[in-house]
Amino acid sequence: MEKKNFLCTGCQKKYPLDRTFPRCDDCFEPLEVEITQGEISKKRNYISNNYTLNQNILDRYASFYPLSRINHKLSLREGFTPLIPTNQLSSILDLDNLYLKNETVNPTWSFKDRGTFVCLQHAKNLGYTRIGTVSSGNMAVSVAAYGARANMQTFILVSSDMPLEKIQPILIYNPVLIKVKGDYGQLYYESLKIGQETGIYFLNSDVPFRVEGSKSISFEICEQLGYDVPEYVVIPTSSGGNSRGIIKGFLEFYQQGLINRLPRIICVQLEGCAPIYQAWKNKDEKISPVQEPKAIDHAIANPYPPSGNELLRKLRMYDGMVTTVSDNEALESQVLLAKEGIFAQPAAAVSIAAIKKLRANGIIDKKNKCVAIITGSGLKYSGILNKHSFGSETCTLKTMKEKIVSILEK
Amino acid sequence: MEKKNFLCTGCQKKYPLDRTFPRCDDCFEPLEVEITQGEISKKRNYISNNYTLNQNILDRYASFYPLSRINHKLSLREGFTPLIPTNQLSSILDLDNLYLKNETVNPTWSFKDRGTFVCLQHAKNLGYTRIGTVSSGNMAVSVAAYGARANMQTFILVSSDMPLEKIQPILIYNPVLIKVKGDYGQLYYESLKIGQETGIYFLNSDVPFRVEGSKSISFEICEQLGYDVPEYVVIPTSSGGNSRGIIKGFLEFYQQGLINRLPRIICVQLEGCAPIYQAWKNKDEKISPVQEPKAIDHAIANPYPPSGNELLRKLRMYDGMVTTVSDNEALESQVLLAKEGIFAQPAAAVSIAAIKKLRANGIIDKKNKCVAIITGSGLKYSGILNKHSFGSETCTLKTMKEKIVSILEK
Repeated sequence: MEKKNFLCTGCQKKYPLDRTFPRCDDCFEPLEVEITQGEISKKRNYISNNYTLNQNILDRYASFYPLSRINHKLSLREGFTPLIPTNQLSSILDLDNLYLKNETVNPTWSFKDRGTFVCLQHAKNLGYTRIGTVSSGNMAVSVAAYGARANMQTFILVSSDMPLEKIQPILIYNPVLIKVKGDYGQLYYESLKIGQETGIYFLNSDVPFRVEGSKSISFEICEQLGYDVPEYVVIPTSSGGNSRGIIKGFLEFYQQGLINRLPRIICVQLEGCAPIYQAWKNKDEKISPVQEPKAIDHAIANPYPPSGNELLRKLRMYDGMVTTVSDNEALESQVLLAKEGIFAQPAAAVSIAAIKKLRANGIIDKKNKCVAIITGSGLKYSGILNKHSFGSETCTLKTMKEKIVSILEK
Repeated sequence: MEKKNFLCTGCQKKYPLDRTFPRCDDCFEPLEVEITQGEISKKRNYISNNYTLNQNILDRYASFYPLSRINHKLSLREGFTPLIPTNQLSSILDLDNLYLKNETVNPTWSFKDRGTFVCLQHAKNLGYTRIGTVSSGNMAVSVAAYGARANMQTFILVSSDMPLEKIQPILIYNPVLIKVKGDYGQLYYESLKIGQETGIYFLNSDVPFRVEGSKSISFEICEQLGYDVPEYVVIPTSSGGNSRGIIKGFLEFYQQGLINRLPRIICVQLEGCAPIYQAWKNKDEKISPVQEPKAIDHAIANPYPPSGNELLRKLRMYDGMVTTVSDNEALESQVLLAKEGIFAQPAAAVSIAAIKKLRANGIIDKKNKCVAIITGSGLKYSGILNKHSFGSETCTLKTMKEKIVSILEK
């Protein structure tokens, strides 16, 4: 394998791949792994010779990842999530070819597992025995789970105002969980510094090898669609890291000659916390922090996204776009997605809300093939179900038949 | 394909496959589909030509299922769940080869989706436009999800004392949910009768084509282990339907010559509701209902399991066994499983508790290859997390480094 480097996404400065500080010393923009070419391995499998079942992403796509060594024992067989054609949603949205990339069936029920698994390899290869992250949601759960599996001391830094019901699903994996009082945006930058000083590898959202993990979403979509690239890929966007990875994945398959064009990427934010959209609309080069974020689902409400500037650059370079939807549109889309049998968290349902909006205003054509990334499970945030009004019926065993017949006659 | 029948598991009476009443007219024991032989299809795929990704169980194992027609639009790509080798658990349990079959990453995060998908095909083929189930947990969620995807009117009958937080994750899929006052065991039998009278296909736990769905768990385990059959397969057991299907799956691969022996099946129940274990221990032929079930997780607490008698027969015929664990052992096993990165509901963690117990008393040998079925996600029942005592730390941004250093020095 050709030797690869990290490149600064801002100034293109090169850094060696054994660097752990994820940002440029000069311009402080996030680093990324140089474009890597590889081939799909249909043979490799981490526990048996049966290649069609049980591959993990670093089995099948290993050569696209410049890792000196891969420890498959750390895998929970993340990725290879279903790509589901829609039935009712196609009619409701008047869109012939809509597919749902269901990331809710990953090992910790969100897309984060891909990046955690890949990034953990980098940490291990550099000799780290401790990892951490700054997160209060899906990333914290994912890092705690993989840290446990790897038997590494795992530091989860959360905001001190985080409620117990959000912390418990992290704590079951037994990490060192620290509630930190103070500005949450600042906490991210502090973690980078402290990580360097104390020997903890922080697998935060913008770390290059976490972004690499998200490439596999694109690889799978290409394969699952028989290399017939969709016109649109729609991504719920918070920190920007997942969108960066998905863009890079399509680029690598394109440069490898596996696909003959790129999809148009649509990033979606919630109106109440849309720093990337704001910068996009104002044609700014840099993200301005949102002062008072108000969004229904914390998982898509990063007020100062670490990958924001770089995502803006990539979207401009490759004809992408950013849009917003309201809290109510996100909730409505939760119900729409459930009609296809998928219960997504509101943060994940925004991709459907965006498609509905862009279909209505004609940007997406009825004939366009679209893939909506469904980033995380609705069970992650079941409290939100109180915002919906559902009906139910009541009867006794004796009156049950009568009740059912009366419903059937309606 | 050779024409198949239903056989009564009690008296062997034959019934045609277009029958919907799931039990024998004479002895009232559950019916099952005759043993079917088939072959694994590595080519078939419901959306693209890429056979290695995105197959569903009725793509790959189609010929093992005597269905006149398969509608792949109803699929959420259930099954093909990971088989995960253990790291720390192997040491903790002193067991060289332990694998976790992680059913928590199915479309509605439990094993139930396999049976719902297969059974729905049978309902569709017979012309049904309405389905239903009696369940308050994983099966209700699964049937509601697939009913929505199939755009069929879906009746979910639950006990009237079911709390709102358990009902909401069913209601998001918009079924007709009916809370029924009266004896819950009776409700199951009533549903069979009313289903016949009103044209609703009830996909309950013992329906033959639901049991057929569970066969795919065994098929996958065989393939994932390269046809090297494990000595033990350990299954959390409530209604008994899943265990019946898993036993049948191994039998069919055995009769097909794909494997050269059968694993020993271990069914696990909770001490507070163990009707199958009681009958097993007492050498009874029939299950006696548990009068006052007291179990920490409703998902494994069926006081009068519809498939109980048949499961007893099959376990006796094929050298299986039944064991119990306590609520506390289930909780402790939740923590053990989390060390491997899997957060399971207590009902699912009992398989680990059973292995620990049987390893300690020497029934399972250190060198035996064991597969634990992990039936459902911990997020299904997050209220249980209050039963665990977890620790966390607190600091401010300023004191964070000091706090981390003090933890590292411990």
